[in-house]
Amino acid sequence: MSPYSVLVTGANRGIGLGLVRELLKDSGIGVIVATARDIENAQKLKEVQDPRLHLLQLDVNCDKSIKTFYEKLSGVVGENGLNVLINNAGVLVNYTSEQEPSRKDLLKQIETNTISVVVLTQKLLPLLDRAASQKPPSEFSINRAAVLNISSGLGSIGNNTIGSTEKGFLAYRISKAGLNQFGKTFGIDVKNKGILVSSFCPGWVQTDMGGEQAQLTTEQSAEALVSSFHRLNAEHTGLYFDRNLKPLEF
Amino acid sequence: MSPYSVLVTGANRGIGLGLVRELLKDSGIGVIVATARDIENAQKLKEVQDPRLHLLQLDVNCDKSIKTFYEKLSGVVGENGLNVLINNAGVLVNYTSEQEPSRKDLLKQIETNTISVVVLTQKLLPLLDRAASQKPPSEFSINRAAVLNISSGLGSIGNNTIGSTEKGFLAYRISKAGLNQFGKTFGIDVKNKGILVSSFCPGWVQTDMGGEQAQLTTEQSAEALVSSFHRLNAEHTGLYFDRNLKPLEF
Repeated sequence: MSPYSVLVTGANRGIGLGLVRELLKDSGIGVIVATARDIENAQKLKEVQDPRLHLLQLDVNCDKSIKTFYEKLSGVVGENGLNVLINNAGVLVNYTSEQEPSRKDLLKQIETNTISVVVLTQKLLPLLDRAASQKPPSEFSINRAAVLNISSGLGSIGNNTIGSTEKGFLAYRISKAGLNQFGKTFGIDVKNKGILVSSFCPGWVQTDMGGEQAQLTTEQSAEALVSSFHRLNAEHTGLYFDRNLKPLEF
Repeated sequence: MSPYSVLVTGANRGIGLGLVRELLKDSGIGVIVATARDIENAQKLKEVQDPRLHLLQLDVNCDKSIKTFYEKLSGVVGENGLNVLINNAGVLVNYTSEQEPSRKDLLKQIETNTISVVVLTQKLLPLLDRAASQKPPSEFSINRAAVLNISSGLGSIGNNTIGSTEKGFLAYRISKAGLNQFGKTFGIDVKNKGILVSSFCPGWVQTDMGGEQAQLTTEQSAEALVSSFHRLNAEHTGLYFDRNLKPLEF
């Protein structure tokens, strides 16, 4: 039997890199596939020495890159398929409602954080389905098959109280609300296949995106997230949580 | 003083046309601007005989069209600016999570229903601001200035219980959740300018999109919506309602 496998997109830095390091502590994971747009310059990922780690090039905004990646990934995960897809790759495009409108910036933000997640997840569905079909129908957890979306608390519409003019999060908020709606819809669609889907806010993390003054290190965020992933069951599918599995309002 | 003005996008058919007809019953409205991508073929709109009605070409997906439109609109509304923008133009692109992924279809759906609404609303903000600045700060209603987004109950993430496989609403749901997040964020951003922002589900309406078996005529939907518009106040800004002003969950 092929080993249990996890894929993390956008893993060359920040939360993605933190998740890879945290997941490698788990001896139950046989294969971790980590992707980056630019593998050549993914220095920190290359420094991780572990035979279970496979680095693959992937630009989620490019269908050709997704196609090539899919073929390589199929070879790596083999007959068992892919157990867990962690959609972490994302960008922050600063955008306020008071600025000059920019269709290009809105498209870039929403294509990367929302549309490309839909496309990649759909493309990988056969591999997730293959993994799910090898476990008993009673099992509904990341041990079987799961799609875990790294969203943001800024995606919450209900909890949005500060708007965009101070921080420039207009396009980002829209992209993450869209991602949450994808997670909800897709979670319903694939529940009968035994695939779990949840969305997470990683907290305010010290990354290039979060800045140095942020509250959490990538290690702290990744540790909390992975702990929460292990506690997921059928009741959580389609829903949206903070890193400690506290439910967030859509 | 220039007259009170309302703009309805995508007004050549369906709910947009219904809103124009309903709004024309109100003698307090001095100018109604109705837009269509293809003015030549906007037959039903051309049949409406009212000197207050101005038909203008607008393709919300085209920045050049928005620029030309903005100049013409500025001339029509004059010194008073624009009191109410009704973002109604939208499309439904069928998309299920089980289909072959199509970045193009996702982009088309989300650009039209979400991104173009952001771009157009930002572009028209100076005209809304001009209208708002002419009324006392205590006034916070459509009598002063408002952006009213025609969303859909399918945009609700929290109330989404049927997914996309049966009806093909994956991309549409994402686009409307994104629109609701725009309404929430923009509502906060422009509240201090005296501009009200709300999102509405028009109900299931007998249109090209809704089909013949739908529950409501365009007249019934438009009548309920316009009645709700008149009841909006500061407490409603940023929020999301059904046609009868019942709050909807994001």
